[in-house]
Amino acid sequence: MRISDVRITPVAVEDMPLLNTKGVHGSHFLRSIIEVECDDGTVGLGETYGAVKTLEGLRKVAPDLVGMDPFHLNDLAARVSNALPNAGGINHKTMLTQHQVVDVVYSAFEIPMLDIQGHATGRSVSEVLGGAVREKVNFSAYLFFKFAKPDDQPGLDFFGEVMTTDALVAQAEDFVTNHGFKSLKLKGGVLPPDDEVETMHALRARFPDHPLRIDPMGAWKVPTAKRFCDAVAGVLEYLEDPVRGMNAMAELSAQTDIPLSTNLVAVEFPHIFEGYAKDAFQIILSDIHYWRGATGARLLGEMCRAAGMGVSMHSNTHLGISLAATTHVAAATPNLTYDSDTHYPWTNHDVIKGGKWKFEDGALAVPKGPGLGVELDREAMAELHETYLEQTQIDRNDTEEIKRYIPDYVRQVPRW
Amino acid sequence: MRISDVRITPVAVEDMPLLNTKGVHGSHFLRSIIEVECDDGTVGLGETYGAVKTLEGLRKVAPDLVGMDPFHLNDLAARVSNALPNAGGINHKTMLTQHQVVDVVYSAFEIPMLDIQGHATGRSVSEVLGGAVREKVNFSAYLFFKFAKPDDQPGLDFFGEVMTTDALVAQAEDFVTNHGFKSLKLKGGVLPPDDEVETMHALRARFPDHPLRIDPMGAWKVPTAKRFCDAVAGVLEYLEDPVRGMNAMAELSAQTDIPLSTNLVAVEFPHIFEGYAKDAFQIILSDIHYWRGATGARLLGEMCRAAGMGVSMHSNTHLGISLAATTHVAAATPNLTYDSDTHYPWTNHDVIKGGKWKFEDGALAVPKGPGLGVELDREAMAELHETYLEQTQIDRNDTEEIKRYIPDYVRQVPRW
Repeated sequence: MRISDVRITPVAVEDMPLLNTKGVHGSHFLRSIIEVECDDGTVGLGETYGAVKTLEGLRKVAPDLVGMDPFHLNDLAARVSNALPNAGGINHKTMLTQHQVVDVVYSAFEIPMLDIQGHATGRSVSEVLGGAVREKVNFSAYLFFKFAKPDDQPGLDFFGEVMTTDALVAQAEDFVTNHGFKSLKLKGGVLPPDDEVETMHALRARFPDHPLRIDPMGAWKVPTAKRFCDAVAGVLEYLEDPVRGMNAMAELSAQTDIPLSTNLVAVEFPHIFEGYAKDAFQIILSDIHYWRGATGARLLGEMCRAAGMGVSMHSNTHLGISLAATTHVAAATPNLTYDSDTHYPWTNHDVIKGGKWKFEDGALAVPKGPGLGVELDREAMAELHETYLEQTQIDRNDTEEIKRYIPDYVRQVPRW
Repeated sequence: MRISDVRITPVAVEDMPLLNTKGVHGSHFLRSIIEVECDDGTVGLGETYGAVKTLEGLRKVAPDLVGMDPFHLNDLAARVSNALPNAGGINHKTMLTQHQVVDVVYSAFEIPMLDIQGHATGRSVSEVLGGAVREKVNFSAYLFFKFAKPDDQPGLDFFGEVMTTDALVAQAEDFVTNHGFKSLKLKGGVLPPDDEVETMHALRARFPDHPLRIDPMGAWKVPTAKRFCDAVAGVLEYLEDPVRGMNAMAELSAQTDIPLSTNLVAVEFPHIFEGYAKDAFQIILSDIHYWRGATGARLLGEMCRAAGMGVSMHSNTHLGISLAATTHVAAATPNLTYDSDTHYPWTNHDVIKGGKWKFEDGALAVPKGPGLGVELDREAMAELHETYLEQTQIDRNDTEEIKRYIPDYVRQVPRW
């Protein structure tokens, strides 16, 4: 069984003006859909970022995968490294998180390989990874402050403007009612910290039993974060990336009992050791898109166990292939005990057959497989690829985008 | 495909009076041979320690594996943990290394599971682990000071007494000539440190291109070890466990440029983080028998890469099933760049069909499989099981054993 063809299709999916501390989501989010075909006709599916650096990396590596044994992940790693000297540079130049292109590209191709392995052996991806330790994976509501969609961005908008605590609590009620989420995460760093303290207390009052998290993406200086921690004592399950950089995280960590989590200062395996030595965080957010795929996410789980750290799951905007892969990996990671983040409810589109995944009581049943247990809807993908070609974005740039709304916006991290 | 039967057979294999800082090898070394049979008749093989604590652990877990899917390693981990509360206690009470029984037992059963997976998919164990990154695995000569075999211990002896530098160099010449080893490791901590300095210089003079290692198993105090390091500057590839305990290793590490390796202070994953924070060692010795099997050894490789540490491979006395498993794992561990330790040349016995493995130029070709690529010689195993029943040892106790030779011997670690 050898790989005979690799196809990469960039797609653009309409998005909404969701806010974070760097700016706001644009009219579309970009994804790459990956099909890896074998000489016996088996096709493995994958999904990753659609940013130009990712696409370049995927396209540079793709031809070198032809002829490869899809079970030979060490060979995949070697081929990806060889095709991308100097780690391929940095993905997401405009984001705070600096993933190496080599890690993103390896991750993107590993998932289809595991999908193929599952099809070849009649097993699901979670079985290929050592077996599911849970039948359902719990997800968390991902709450956003947001603008209403501007008139020149046609298409769907959920909730209109959400810039107050009341509107945010209403959004949370919708997510809990319609998807059954049992924990809530707020993308913070948008309103002044005191306002977000009020929001967290309002969420706690309305949902007394829901674990709560907030992720201000490094928006706060250490003293600000310390004041925030004191003001929300007893309210938070964990606090994600309150301050920017490993040393600031360590400084805050020494001053608070609230567990600190991160997907900004620990994005490669060596960072875990540095974070351990500095006690900079207590929980790491996993992600199949940059922690070197599914096996890397499993490895992260084991490293966190060894380091005495917890492990949760990060999410960017994504479609149903990534959701299926995430679900398999979460099911096969014993110590992934926190509910996983997901942006999935923020889109009505998908590229998989059978319609979008539906959360039941905030959870997804682990797909039975074989492989990922999803089939590509090529028509739907073709439409979203048309959209990609029609629009002009080739990268995500939330800071540029927010200037449509606030012309004199200056990116500042930390801001407060 | 489900597990239908698990068989554990303790065997005793004649040994020779090989010396280390705790004492001397007894008349036999003990191993457990493991057969895991599936309902379709597939049998997976494994081999581990034969110490009484190991045997108890294996026998406690074995019945609970019946009905298990041999692909579901997360389920194996859960079943082993459930059957062995409190980690099953400590293996090897008389050794310096304190492995948890749960880790040893998990390891012992994981190898047969991977053997079965290989048979079921028509792939070798190295392929099941992600594919071999090298066609041959290099091994190191394992040199010992030793007594001549006493008259009341019948059977084979190699080299007679080896208690001088000259005799040790002659032993090395034999190993290099007959097996082609390209690097040399001395079990040190036996002669006074100055004598072992002389031995290392003599080995260097005789074998100018062979990387050299010495493992005194914590025999030295920090100042002694520092003097040793100064005296062998430029001679050693690495120095294994010169001093006892994490803090002593860190103290020495700060005073020498010679890379320190360990299989005594890092034997569980959390130790890697502690060692990193203290910079206590630069190389960790892997071992499929206690680092949670083959997947654990792969995981150790990834953790060492993340920590910026090297990885080498430890060995106890063993037979050909363990050698096959070690070879597959070493082949599938990209950063296992040091030649692996092996005791294998110190025995004439085996339990595999087709005779003993032969080293060519100090290396073994990775077995093609399927699975481990070895078949059990049940007659040979039955004979060695008879030997087990005839002899009286149920544990290894090198310190008791050396009193046959030196009645007033007192175990002292560190000794110098």
